[in-house]
Amino acid sequence: MSRRLRLGMVGGGEGAFIGAVHRLAARLDDRWELVAGAFSRDAERGRRSAAALHVAPDRAYADAAQMAQAEAARADRVDAVAIVTPNASHHAIARVFLGAGIHVICDKPLTTRLEDARDLQRAVAESGCIFALTHNYTGYPMVRQARAMVADGALGAVRVVQVEYPQDWLATPIETTGQKQAAWRLDPAQAGPAGSLGDLGTHAHNIAEFVTGLRVDSVAAQLTAFVPGRRVDDDAQVMLRFAGGARGMLWSSQVAPGNENALRLRVFGEAGALEWAQEHPNQLRFTPLSEAPRILARGGAGLSAAAAHATRIPAGHPEGYIEGFAQLYRDVAEQITARLEGRAADAAALLVPGVGDGVRGVAFVAACVESGRRDGAWVGLCIR
Amino acid sequence: MSRRLRLGMVGGGEGAFIGAVHRLAARLDDRWELVAGAFSRDAERGRRSAAALHVAPDRAYADAAQMAQAEAARADRVDAVAIVTPNASHHAIARVFLGAGIHVICDKPLTTRLEDARDLQRAVAESGCIFALTHNYTGYPMVRQARAMVADGALGAVRVVQVEYPQDWLATPIETTGQKQAAWRLDPAQAGPAGSLGDLGTHAHNIAEFVTGLRVDSVAAQLTAFVPGRRVDDDAQVMLRFAGGARGMLWSSQVAPGNENALRLRVFGEAGALEWAQEHPNQLRFTPLSEAPRILARGGAGLSAAAAHATRIPAGHPEGYIEGFAQLYRDVAEQITARLEGRAADAAALLVPGVGDGVRGVAFVAACVESGRRDGAWVGLCIR
Amino acid sequence: MSRRLRLGMVGGGEGAFIGAVHRLAARLDDRWELVAGAFSRDAERGRRSAAALHVAPDRAYADAAQMAQAEAARADRVDAVAIVTPNASHHAIARVFLGAGIHVICDKPLTTRLEDARDLQRAVAESGCIFALTHNYTGYPMVRQARAMVADGALGAVRVVQVEYPQDWLATPIETTGQKQAAWRLDPAQAGPAGSLGDLGTHAHNIAEFVTGLRVDSVAAQLTAFVPGRRVDDDAQVMLRFAGGARGMLWSSQVAPGNENALRLRVFGEAGALEWAQEHPNQLRFTPLSEAPRILARGGAGLSAAAAHATRIPAGHPEGYIEGFAQLYRDVAEQITARLEGRAADAAALLVPGVGDGVRGVAFVAACVESGRRDGAWVGLCIR
Amino acid sequence: MSRRLRLGMVGGGEGAFIGAVHRLAARLDDRWELVAGAFSRDAERGRRSAAALHVAPDRAYADAAQMAQAEAARADRVDAVAIVTPNASHHAIARVFLGAGIHVICDKPLTTRLEDARDLQRAVAESGCIFALTHNYTGYPMVRQARAMVADGALGAVRVVQVEYPQDWLATPIETTGQKQAAWRLDPAQAGPAGSLGDLGTHAHNIAEFVTGLRVDSVAAQLTAFVPGRRVDDDAQVMLRFAGGARGMLWSSQVAPGNENALRLRVFGEAGALEWAQEHPNQLRFTPLSEAPRILARGGAGLSAAAAHATRIPAGHPEGYIEGFAQLYRDVAEQITARLEGRAADAAALLVPGVGDGVRGVAFVAACVESGRRDGAWVGLCIR
Repeated sequence: MSRRLRLGMVGGGEGAFIGAVHRLAARLDDRWELVAGAFSRDAERGRRSAAALHVAPDRAYADAAQMAQAEAARADRVDAVAIVTPNASHHAIARVFLGAGIHVICDKPLTTRLEDARDLQRAVAESGCIFALTHNYTGYPMVRQARAMVADGALGAVRVVQVEYPQDWLATPIETTGQKQAAWRLDPAQAGPAGSLGDLGTHAHNIAEFVTGLRVDSVAAQLTAFVPGRRVDDDAQVMLRFAGGARGMLWSSQVAPGNENALRLRVFGEAGALEWAQEHPNQLRFTPLSEAPRILARGGAGLSAAAAHATRIPAGHPEGYIEGFAQLYRDVAEQITARLEGRAADAAALLVPGVGDGVRGVAFVAACVESGRRDGAWVGLCIR
Repeated sequence: MSRRLRLGMVGGGEGAFIGAVHRLAARLDDRWELVAGAFSRDAERGRRSAAALHVAPDRAYADAAQMAQAEAARADRVDAVAIVTPNASHHAIARVFLGAGIHVICDKPLTTRLEDARDLQRAVAESGCIFALTHNYTGYPMVRQARAMVADGALGAVRVVQVEYPQDWLATPIETTGQKQAAWRLDPAQAGPAGSLGDLGTHAHNIAEFVTGLRVDSVAAQLTAFVPGRRVDDDAQVMLRFAGGARGMLWSSQVAPGNENALRLRVFGEAGALEWAQEHPNQLRFTPLSEAPRILARGGAGLSAAAAHATRIPAGHPEGYIEGFAQLYRDVAEQITARLEGRAADAAALLVPGVGDGVRGVAFVAACVESGRRDGAWVGLCIR
Repeated sequence: MSRRLRLGMVGGGEGAFIGAVHRLAARLDDRWELVAGAFSRDAERGRRSAAALHVAPDRAYADAAQMAQAEAARADRVDAVAIVTPNASHHAIARVFLGAGIHVICDKPLTTRLEDARDLQRAVAESGCIFALTHNYTGYPMVRQARAMVADGALGAVRVVQVEYPQDWLATPIETTGQKQAAWRLDPAQAGPAGSLGDLGTHAHNIAEFVTGLRVDSVAAQLTAFVPGRRVDDDAQVMLRFAGGARGMLWSSQVAPGNENALRLRVFGEAGALEWAQEHPNQLRFTPLSEAPRILARGGAGLSAAAAHATRIPAGHPEGYIEGFAQLYRDVAEQITARLEGRAADAAALLVPGVGDGVRGVAFVAACVESGRRDGAWVGLCIR
Repeated sequence: MSRRLRLGMVGGGEGAFIGAVHRLAARLDDRWELVAGAFSRDAERGRRSAAALHVAPDRAYADAAQMAQAEAARADRVDAVAIVTPNASHHAIARVFLGAGIHVICDKPLTTRLEDARDLQRAVAESGCIFALTHNYTGYPMVRQARAMVADGALGAVRVVQVEYPQDWLATPIETTGQKQAAWRLDPAQAGPAGSLGDLGTHAHNIAEFVTGLRVDSVAAQLTAFVPGRRVDDDAQVMLRFAGGARGMLWSSQVAPGNENALRLRVFGEAGALEWAQEHPNQLRFTPLSEAPRILARGGAGLSAAAAHATRIPAGHPEGYIEGFAQLYRDVAEQITARLEGRAADAAALLVPGVGDGVRGVAFVAACVESGRRDGAWVGLCIR
């Protein structure tokens, strides 16, 4: 049996949201143990967080740089580091660990500036390290099933993509009330030039590309900050053109009452259609043209190997957000373990989004922001 | 008890779809009897249709002009005429009946050219006649409930409108196989310059304005004909700006497998949201901000007078498309009867879309087509 | 074209619920015109009702006996009579019209006493008249589709039937507040020995037998009157044994908050299952064993002739309660017209429930009441 | 920070289903580490399982007795043991660990014989140990929310309970094909005298009692083995009487195509109703009498402390089966830790089902089996 891998974490101290999710995800499948961290820029808080997480005091670091240096020097160094800090710091932190030859698992979006994203892409290539970007919705079995079905031609050529990701928690100016999650996400200095678009739209863009295998080529967007005083969009409406001719619409919003986390993807092809909704992730609606819709279920009969690979428990026993997120950690563990053991990784474990997906996401945001500035003109994504 | 009103019909002969629907709608509430018609440009077919519909042979006319003249001369002349011909002929036919002082119930869209629409608007004003446009989805009780709730402030100021109307029946080139419904709807000479946009998008535009009380101010659109050889769009994607600052997205499609007639409207305001789907029309989802969503039901407790007015049977006994359509006929009957009886009509019967709504619909299509031609530039709706 | 048939009605005057529904149903397909009636035991009310319904004063009768006698003597006598009075009077009224050789459309349940039901069955046989019992849920296209699929073996041998029909309108003692619908339905003298069971359970029993083609053989029941002072059950829970070995459960309730009219049937066979819910009647869920569930839609591809026969408008344009009810009137019209024209009726029009179904329904109620009295002992339905 | 607790396991070796689920559940919240086990009666298999689970070889035991003795002698003995063997062995194994003073987490049903269940109840009392029975569905936040709402009077007095738990995986005789899960569950020697009733019906019974706070008093049942050759029921239909006057129906089935794991509970009271479905566990439908239904969501506003206690991630990020199961492990960890630390446990952690619930479950099965034998006669649950 392979050993458990050693995980370090930057960010994710007391009160953090996404850091706690990363730890749940890392723990679920018993392939990782958290052994080191720079959990907070506040030293005392960092120490308390480490203790609560059963991390040894000597591996609770003050910052990423110290951590990378110290860990790189240990025989039992971390196998990978999870970066769960606000967006603007991803670039610098990832740079440090890649420089130390440590694999990186980075929260999304990749960076807040396109030049940083490209720089990181180069750094990953030079380092030879594994770089995983936690577009966690790609870890859901039925999302992987959808991807496999499109790839297998079940829909024929894709014509139309409809993707949306509305939430409602920012319908009022809670960022002015000290709500920490809201504050940093709406601060351009920490979150970048986009609000809902960076936080949610990047997921929507990513899942659309992941499932269809297509690439967004250009966008026309209107970005709005409906809540007075807000400096970034809390609602983004985008028309999409994909390379190859498919077209689509993307909507992200944080001011849509009645929507908690309502990511939803619909793909329409010449021969059929697929529909998936994150809040009921165990089902996938598939309609072959001119036939009755079918409700495919996680764990059900006839699913793809890719879906089966991402499934832990039988049909009817719902898996959820944590399980989907955990799939990325499980897959990265397999990739690293395969390297350690000098073998090829399980092909099904290679679907984890990487730095290239991250660059495309940042380019997507940049293009939408530019289109918004130019009154909705079509703007191409400048990616070679 | 008021007498039944006398209805004439132009179009709607053997094999027609929407004409048969109009008759079902007119019959349901027993306020109309069909007594005259010019059912077909083919004389023999027109006669057969009249016989099948229990219309006396002497009131089965060759064409609209003959019918208008003959009916205007009768003591028992028709109270109103229903025009259910292809779009391009609405203008001329309506002109003739308005000229004869006969009320008009016209299928949508109003016309295929904006100048015709405006001309008709003037003609209606001059004639003093009632002109009803059968945007039938406004007849559903829960659509009227939604309108009443927005008007009453249940949502606060509206921020975002999402409306879509996908179908799948034109995913393949069935217009080349002799399918009559497809053939005329995809022929610019009969249907106008838009395909899905004219057929479906006008309904989506209308219901968005009807429910929110807002007016679409400008649009940015990409129109596509996915099926090779098609001369009008079979998929239209539109971004919307409403007067007053609300924004929205509109999608119409005839190439979306798994969608039969899936008109769906979502309205998001500062204080709450509403969602309605035509295929399950008896429910309306209402979410007050920060509260649990509620499933309001047709006939249920606490609904508005406007919804109650449009309801025939108790909650849980679903009403459908015919009932919604019939509501317009019932309301027009009330309007005409009130005139005949020299009294004010029931206020609840005044929600029927009219020629002004029709003009806006044609302007909406024209602006989208123009935007599409100009690569998605924002185009204003030229309506004073 | 065949002439419209002439309909008479007993009951259904001002303020009545089911009489108004029968008229909507009769009118929808333009095969009937209402020409006579004994609408109320109150003469003045009867006259007012007739006038409102455009029935000539000389055909507004004081009671059923007078009406049957007078109509039988006319050349333009009614082709059929609709009986929409409280249950206890069905037997006597139907007797009178059958005696006059007039076809009968009778609301359900057939009678309140088993001996009356049997007597009526004999009278129907002797009269040679058509007798239709308005178990209206059998008129829904997707219910007929379900029946056809079971008959065609799509489910294999049926094993388990789950049927329920909960409502909530009698959760409080509204019968003590003058609510007319509640008052008669909870009065054993008018409604018979059962409350929810007679009103709702008979529909549930009927649809279970209609769809499966099986016959309930014996029952074990617990009947409860939850609301204090109520003399008949407002909740009935029944275990079923079908001839041939299938087993099932049936629940009817009028005290189940959140249920408006929630008739729902599930049938499980060796090779597949079907599920249908009255509040969303245009869909039918079909699961072949070990395959993904499919959502069959009214008007969709591949449906049976029986379903197509009962469909008026295309898929996605929902039909509802009135349309389902109207199907029975349409089918009876076809049966009568065929007799008048000396031809065989369209086979698809023969699915209307008849007096035999009514007898079984009354026997079902009687057996459940008996089982309830005997503490849930299994009681056979005494039908030969 | 409290230390992680040490967990042992009996059963759950290679290829086992429920053992793997227990481990996922134990791991999720980082309160347990698996350190010992008697994973299989096959020694080699047990060793392999231990190695795969990172359990030290010297703590991989041959059987429960050896394990209990050896662990009891260690300073770092297990804090609790999870028993995940077939039903018939629970009693003896639990006895052994209770005798050694080790807390027990036991899979359900408690035992296969009522006398064993009672004996175990005495043994628990005498030992002073914590005994948790993994009726895991009680760990779902919205199930706890439902319980809190009933307890708080949101429904008024409960009248009717409808609970069902259908599956379809045993619709064919797969137990004859070597399917291990099917084989033991349908073998009376291992699973006890009931099939679907023991496997599923006990969950349904438990959740009905858990949510309502009521106790099933007597039952009338028909048990069927639809698949030829089967020695225990694969379908059980039960009428329920609760102490205090509520009534209900319970259905468990393994031969219902289209049902994967469709546990569903509905509770109807004088003032409102609740509905919960395991396959969509993050929602709870609540209908106050005469108001619109509300869709309460896990993590949403206004939920009870009991629900919040069982929630890890925000609304809209679905938790599933593993998370619900994990809640029991988290709560037992809190109970044990509180003892170790000499403090009272968090009250919200005390909702874990215990041996008394287990006794009632076994009594429920026994009464149903007896009722089935006596042709559906009402049989009381013999529990003092």
